[in-house]
Amino acid sequence: MSAIQKGDLLYEGKAKKVFLTSDPDLVIQEFKDSATAFDGTKKDTIASKGIVNNSISCAMFKLLESKGIKTHLVEKLDDRNMLVKRLDIMMVEVIARNIAAGSLVRRLGFTEGQILDPPIVEFFLKDDALHDPLINDQHAVHLKLASMDELNHIRTKAREINEIMKEYFLTLNLKLVDFKLEFGRHKGEILLGDEISPDTCRLWDVETGKKLDKDRFRFDLGDVEGAYQEVLKRVVGKEG
Amino acid sequence: MSAIQKGDLLYEGKAKKVFLTSDPDLVIQEFKDSATAFDGTKKDTIASKGIVNNSISCAMFKLLESKGIKTHLVEKLDDRNMLVKRLDIMMVEVIARNIAAGSLVRRLGFTEGQILDPPIVEFFLKDDALHDPLINDQHAVHLKLASMDELNHIRTKAREINEIMKEYFLTLNLKLVDFKLEFGRHKGEILLGDEISPDTCRLWDVETGKKLDKDRFRFDLGDVEGAYQEVLKRVVGKEG
Repeated sequence: MSAIQKGDLLYEGKAKKVFLTSDPDLVIQEFKDSATAFDGTKKDTIASKGIVNNSISCAMFKLLESKGIKTHLVEKLDDRNMLVKRLDIMMVEVIARNIAAGSLVRRLGFTEGQILDPPIVEFFLKDDALHDPLINDQHAVHLKLASMDELNHIRTKAREINEIMKEYFLTLNLKLVDFKLEFGRHKGEILLGDEISPDTCRLWDVETGKKLDKDRFRFDLGDVEGAYQEVLKRVVGKEG
Repeated sequence: MSAIQKGDLLYEGKAKKVFLTSDPDLVIQEFKDSATAFDGTKKDTIASKGIVNNSISCAMFKLLESKGIKTHLVEKLDDRNMLVKRLDIMMVEVIARNIAAGSLVRRLGFTEGQILDPPIVEFFLKDDALHDPLINDQHAVHLKLASMDELNHIRTKAREINEIMKEYFLTLNLKLVDFKLEFGRHKGEILLGDEISPDTCRLWDVETGKKLDKDRFRFDLGDVEGAYQEVLKRVVGKEG
């Protein structure tokens, strides 16, 4: 695997580039430092974010694999690059929530900090022009995003992943408030794709309640790099 | 029942007033001519709308009762007044859709006119300040709008009601595109409440495709009163 080389750029997103390789079943995810929020209207760079998010994502995918969750991770190649299985990505963003925050508060009138037990799982249409609207199962089927069986599968997986991650982050003194997942199809299987990082998870320090995630960037809370580094330090400390 | 008298005004909504009666289990719905759209930002009067909607609603509730659906209807009192069972209304708007139109096109990128088979049932939070956002089952439970059993019940009823209404309107040469339902609790049962009218249903003429519903008001399509009268004429013709 170590001889794998980056081929043509397949896709450039807001936080990552994806490159082809000589193996049609494998692609390389390169993590960038660029950060965007609010449908791309807020843009900046967070120093070393790509390095932090690649490391944390690899650690999380390994943890999940060890608990029986199938992910796209093949191996971490270097600081910013991750070799992954190529997915036919499902155009559904899956959000799991343990504590009310973000759009749940703004859109639906929940109180920030409200405990959600059992956790809420939501599906959103991945469509920037439509601002990633909330959808229900029947919308997803009629929009041909996924079959009902696939939706039930990823909802079940999201709940399993949530239990694993919630427990893990608690050992790092972090509350897993909510997080985003993306799934895709690969050789007849559905694998967890994308990344798991402070860009895609809300993480609050258990003792202080300090937000250690992208909300520091979104709402100009300061010490953005420090928060990402702090999460990495706790994850790596746990690994070591 | 004919001796029933209007008591104090209990509630005034955009299109109806609700009055107490001497019987604590019964209230009177009075249908107004006022029309609003887009969260109340567009307002006007549609001549005789209250009379039309009371008549159509009574006919629809009777039809549904005859097919085993439990509704709040007791009896039509006069042109504008309907005697109904008093409900503890659930703060969930239920929308059933056979053909894509309205918010499905604007919010989710469906093509107007796309056939939805099986029909889509959606839940919305009844909250003007939040612009009645789409919600999923778990939101509804955590917001204490309804239990999961109640949600499953009203979703099943919405599908049954849709089948009955779709078939009925077809006999009137009308396509039932979509419609809104509200349910409430009464003495341990869940009853269909509110109204069923061109204010709450999208109805398209089968031959011409002409919109015979509130969209004529929303989008200034002209001949608003005529459209409401046309639906009433077809419903009454069917009754006679």
